[in-house]
Amino acid sequence: MSEPFRIGLLGHGTVGAAFAKLLDERAGAIEAEVGRRPELAGVLTRSRGDFADILERSDLVVELMGGIDPTREYVLRALEAGRHVVSANKQLLSQHGEEVFDAARSAQVQLRFEGAVAGVVPAIRVMAETLAAAHIERVHGIVNGTTNFILSEMARTGASYDEALRQAQELGYAEADPTEDVTGKDAAAKMAILARLAFNAAVRLDEVSYEGIEHLTGDDIAYAKELDLSLKLIGSAERIDSGIAVHVYPAFLYADHPLASVNGAFNAVTIESPAITEITLSGPGAGGIQTASAVLGDVISAMIPPPSLPPPPVDVPVVTDTEFSFYLHLEVADRPGVLAQVAELLGLQGVSIKSVVQKGLGREARLVMVMHPVLESRFRAAVELISRLDFVREPPRVIRVIEETFA
Amino acid sequence: MSEPFRIGLLGHGTVGAAFAKLLDERAGAIEAEVGRRPELAGVLTRSRGDFADILERSDLVVELMGGIDPTREYVLRALEAGRHVVSANKQLLSQHGEEVFDAARSAQVQLRFEGAVAGVVPAIRVMAETLAAAHIERVHGIVNGTTNFILSEMARTGASYDEALRQAQELGYAEADPTEDVTGKDAAAKMAILARLAFNAAVRLDEVSYEGIEHLTGDDIAYAKELDLSLKLIGSAERIDSGIAVHVYPAFLYADHPLASVNGAFNAVTIESPAITEITLSGPGAGGIQTASAVLGDVISAMIPPPSLPPPPVDVPVVTDTEFSFYLHLEVADRPGVLAQVAELLGLQGVSIKSVVQKGLGREARLVMVMHPVLESRFRAAVELISRLDFVREPPRVIRVIEETFA
Repeated sequence: MSEPFRIGLLGHGTVGAAFAKLLDERAGAIEAEVGRRPELAGVLTRSRGDFADILERSDLVVELMGGIDPTREYVLRALEAGRHVVSANKQLLSQHGEEVFDAARSAQVQLRFEGAVAGVVPAIRVMAETLAAAHIERVHGIVNGTTNFILSEMARTGASYDEALRQAQELGYAEADPTEDVTGKDAAAKMAILARLAFNAAVRLDEVSYEGIEHLTGDDIAYAKELDLSLKLIGSAERIDSGIAVHVYPAFLYADHPLASVNGAFNAVTIESPAITEITLSGPGAGGIQTASAVLGDVISAMIPPPSLPPPPVDVPVVTDTEFSFYLHLEVADRPGVLAQVAELLGLQGVSIKSVVQKGLGREARLVMVMHPVLESRFRAAVELISRLDFVREPPRVIRVIEETFA
Repeated sequence: MSEPFRIGLLGHGTVGAAFAKLLDERAGAIEAEVGRRPELAGVLTRSRGDFADILERSDLVVELMGGIDPTREYVLRALEAGRHVVSANKQLLSQHGEEVFDAARSAQVQLRFEGAVAGVVPAIRVMAETLAAAHIERVHGIVNGTTNFILSEMARTGASYDEALRQAQELGYAEADPTEDVTGKDAAAKMAILARLAFNAAVRLDEVSYEGIEHLTGDDIAYAKELDLSLKLIGSAERIDSGIAVHVYPAFLYADHPLASVNGAFNAVTIESPAITEITLSGPGAGGIQTASAVLGDVISAMIPPPSLPPPPVDVPVVTDTEFSFYLHLEVADRPGVLAQVAELLGLQGVSIKSVVQKGLGREARLVMVMHPVLESRFRAAVELISRLDFVREPPRVIRVIEETFA
């Protein structure tokens, strides 16, 4: 058996606790994948643990304390001691990035920070690895989930800013003091980090201009709908003739913009480069478990040289008869009892109807239905029976329907 | 100076030629990033080059020949000789994946294949690295650009399948013989590869059931619009109670599904896992330069242990006054000449109006405008002058507008 891979955890708040739990749950799967079992070597909180002791016993330090002081010192000491560091600390990286990058470079250890920007959205990895040699022209992102939730609610329900903010606070999407989020300051720190990676230019946080969403009115959003625009808090970093520009501001997006359909507390980042046109990445922007998952992905990457190979496969059956929702289109004669007979045959196979549109066309009619999920074989059996009914004039048309799977 | 990193290129078709060109353009940037300069050690085509000779002179082999024979043999020989391999060959990986994975594992070299699935969309890397220890429940994707283009055209213009296919062929999105694409066979091979990675289960290509789009009618798409559904060719791989299920089929998506807004020749993949909720990745699905870019990202990853660190920054100025489109909302008195005066002040600053909505409200009116892109300082100067006009009743409201940047 190989040595365990020892992780020192700094911070045990929402993300720290979620990380510890996730690590425990996935340790077996990680060992199977990379050959070493990760385990917690120690946890530092405000009230317990000794940093020097935890450092001594760790191969890698996960920093989820946040803030600058004393975090900066701990991270530098860990790097200088030759430990890999994984951090989700956007303040530290946007304000002291060069200092910690230099320390990691000198010590030839890894410093990974996917969790610092855009939650689980793998923007850092895709820019640093997939696009390592691409010439990136522009990065546009929705990098703050709180404000995106508020703007989505204002658009969806017509709520005012104050109402939507209260709603966000009740649901846990906004803090009691939402200033960092709603002023755009949080997004500015994340854009400074993304700009650093996209353009390889040291961007100071005070060079990122930002505006928030506090002054926006439901009125603006209503007008925007008339013009087919949706309102988002956008972080933007781009090359321009004379250098680079990094801004955070509320902006309307035309409906076909890849960020226009990102709603609720989701984050998304669009990266533009001549060689790739653009890549858009989206996913949940925050949440303890989601950020912890991004942190764990970084830990695994630090544990191994890039695997690039799936492990040998395990034996799992491939099943073909599975559940789907279906759309059913029937051309029928327009006479009493048609819908009843169709519904009965569906019901006999356990198929439940979700919605129906019936249209009369003179002596004929068209029946369009969407079903609740059902085993395909049962639905096909019902359709086979329906196709034999004398009032069905054409072969039934069947297409699957995909429902949104999360609330 | 360190040794160059030598690349043997097999195949010089559209993607192969684009890769050779891109490598040449980016060699300097790659050397600056990873410390070694990549260079072509030789190119094998049908008519020139000797495989054994190219292999001998290479550190890594890029396989862009496609097909199984003789490609399979070349890839196995390269791996057995201890060379890293980067391939974009979906046939080879979906039909002989275990054989080549085993060969790479035995030789302890890297085998990377981002370009084989979904063009530039980094689905392989995100699953293998970001989500290395996540328990993936489901992968849904639009992994064939040809069919997505055809379906998008049918929805957008009301064209029939035959008309949209012809349009796709004229624009180079579909081949003269489109069978592989429109029957779903191409998507099935890609889903077999994604399922292998998502579930760590060996999926045989003949276990993936697929349906194509040839039988779809404009009629179905028109009805779907009434129900707020859009039609896509979906590849689906998911865990179910008794194993895993992998399908390719046309399906309607509700408007809020993350894949519903993926139009034209774009590809996208949504990965669902309890710890992350879901990540969606989208981008161009095909094209020589885009696939070449994905291949080059793999080559760079194979050149180095994961970098995880940006290189030291270069000196680039951060610019704050840049061009934007703007939305301008004015509450004005409803009298003649109002729009003319506003337009004149905008024109004096070089601001050009793209669209206007004017609404009378009794003796007052509301003017909502969207401008063409203009330097922010000029627009702000115009708004400052406009705000002083006697008929402007409230402070003007200004919000940026983002336009879609590609056709």
